[in-house]
Amino acid sequence: MSRIYNFSAGPSALPEAVLLQAQQEMLDWRGTGMSVMEMSHRGKHFMTIAETLYQDLRELLAIPDHYKIALLQGGATAQFSFIPLNLLNGKNKACYVNTGAWSGKAIKDASRYCQVQVSASSEDSRFTTIPERERWDIDPDAAYFHYTSNETIHGVEFPETPEVGDMPLVADMSSNILSRQFDVSRFGLIYAGAQKNMGPAGVTVVIVRDDLIGHADSSVPPVFDYQQQINNDSMLNTPATYNWYLLGLVLQWLKQQGGIAAIEQRNIDKAEKLYRAVDQSALYRNPVDKSCRSRMNVPFVLADSALDKEFLALAEKNGLGALKGHRSVGGMRASIYNAMPESGVDALIEFMAEFERTH
Amino acid sequence: MSRIYNFSAGPSALPEAVLLQAQQEMLDWRGTGMSVMEMSHRGKHFMTIAETLYQDLRELLAIPDHYKIALLQGGATAQFSFIPLNLLNGKNKACYVNTGAWSGKAIKDASRYCQVQVSASSEDSRFTTIPERERWDIDPDAAYFHYTSNETIHGVEFPETPEVGDMPLVADMSSNILSRQFDVSRFGLIYAGAQKNMGPAGVTVVIVRDDLIGHADSSVPPVFDYQQQINNDSMLNTPATYNWYLLGLVLQWLKQQGGIAAIEQRNIDKAEKLYRAVDQSALYRNPVDKSCRSRMNVPFVLADSALDKEFLALAEKNGLGALKGHRSVGGMRASIYNAMPESGVDALIEFMAEFERTH
Repeated sequence: MSRIYNFSAGPSALPEAVLLQAQQEMLDWRGTGMSVMEMSHRGKHFMTIAETLYQDLRELLAIPDHYKIALLQGGATAQFSFIPLNLLNGKNKACYVNTGAWSGKAIKDASRYCQVQVSASSEDSRFTTIPERERWDIDPDAAYFHYTSNETIHGVEFPETPEVGDMPLVADMSSNILSRQFDVSRFGLIYAGAQKNMGPAGVTVVIVRDDLIGHADSSVPPVFDYQQQINNDSMLNTPATYNWYLLGLVLQWLKQQGGIAAIEQRNIDKAEKLYRAVDQSALYRNPVDKSCRSRMNVPFVLADSALDKEFLALAEKNGLGALKGHRSVGGMRASIYNAMPESGVDALIEFMAEFERTH
Repeated sequence: MSRIYNFSAGPSALPEAVLLQAQQEMLDWRGTGMSVMEMSHRGKHFMTIAETLYQDLRELLAIPDHYKIALLQGGATAQFSFIPLNLLNGKNKACYVNTGAWSGKAIKDASRYCQVQVSASSEDSRFTTIPERERWDIDPDAAYFHYTSNETIHGVEFPETPEVGDMPLVADMSSNILSRQFDVSRFGLIYAGAQKNMGPAGVTVVIVRDDLIGHADSSVPPVFDYQQQINNDSMLNTPATYNWYLLGLVLQWLKQQGGIAAIEQRNIDKAEKLYRAVDQSALYRNPVDKSCRSRMNVPFVLADSALDKEFLALAEKNGLGALKGHRSVGGMRASIYNAMPESGVDALIEFMAEFERTH
């Protein structure tokens, strides 16, 4: 067996320790004679797994008691619809800031359910900036304010939680949750697909403040009504049990790493190193404004795009996988989530330097 | 490692060969240096896995070309809502037959979106029969006719596909899909959660006839609009890739067993054996009419329910797990899906006989 450094944007690399534990427990979880994926979700064994997962998530993110957690299916993409359907609560407007491909999708889907006011957009800079807070146009009648804390495709990340007053702040944190410290109490709702920093695809975490629960539109199926799922510990339908288990293992791994503060420092170090290498080279370039470069997704282009193919092929040969940029922006992208060890970033930097020397 | 015989109703036992393969490939799928759960769903490796899965499912169920497959999230429970939302197509009525807990839930959720006509019900027999077809009251103006082909809790199974004329026939096959032969072309839509006969929880298979696609209500989120998902190979949102992979391994295992015809014969043999043991004993009793006893879920009660606890504890001691009946009906339940080997049924029968001798 030979593992590569996997820079995939999502689904993405998981900690090797987590995979090893899952492998070891595959046919027999702790002497039960069953795989976790064979257990009843109502049985005592899986209930232990679920309770530990909820506790660890609360602990890692310091989630206050008046916030509830729902573990849903359908991805963050389903939430693009179910957030307005759960939060509009009779209002007909929501505010969104447009900072790239994912906020664009969120806006498009929300527009099917209400009037979307785009309070600010960085489209003019081709999504290489975050619009200045002072210029955001927020309608006080909006039900909530939505932003995407990290844009996976464009490599743009909010350096801090924006201030929007009393309006419920909603964040799609799919690609940077658990990667940095933030204050949950600043938010009305946080949601994130698991498949970047948390585990395999198939679970979506929704963290929502008490007062925003219980207002779902009558068209919402019970399994996507936050209140009904929260009342049922997210087991109104059979949960994706094995995905929960792996999410739980990732949370335990994260605690062993020292929690969010420790992983954030490692993420800062990894990202700074990689951006420095890009900035100091003549061959590579990252177009994003330095104030809002993502610590998670580092897109870069080669001065001569004719070299792209060779770069990717040689990288793969050197055990550096999934570096191709998203088709909508081209070039390269190195996703360096929590599970990417510093040695992977070092190997990439070394390869990039060597490639530049020889081309 | 010591594996038990796991009679869980769902999530339930998987073929040991599948778990062993998944274990072996956990950290490195076929020399890629990645776990399947770390792969981009758009990459060539996962595309191969997905294509094989679609082909195998088509082959095993002999799905005609004018039927499409969607692999969705949210369980069969989400489909209780999304079936009316996708199929009503301007009509305001659907017909359902009520044969137990799961059809009851389907009726309850559908009632939120249209008028539900309960064409027949076996509630009077405490769900131990299937209502005579001659007495079903089907409204020709209904958009579709829905039934639950196997009731997991009550242990009632339709012995054959009911005839409903031109009306689109919709079946919840969550607990008996892939266990017996049937003619897909008799149906408008078939749906099934994976966690009984197909794989781990987290995937729902929807097989739908061309003419029923493309009529979703405007409130339906794109990820639950059959047309949009089918147009995107069910990748409109990031699919639960590892769950797809395991589903694919189960399908390959099933082909190695000789396909549906072969597994059906084994299922008949297993069920007949177990029902015979129950019927011949003085201690055990199954209340379901012999014409519609489930081959998948065999509920039984003890003549003296005071012995239940001891029965379960001793069974567990003997490596026979998850035999407790659903809380709504009590007693015991042995779920004997495709993955339960005949040796497991033999071991259960032997244990039951021994328990009867000594109590």
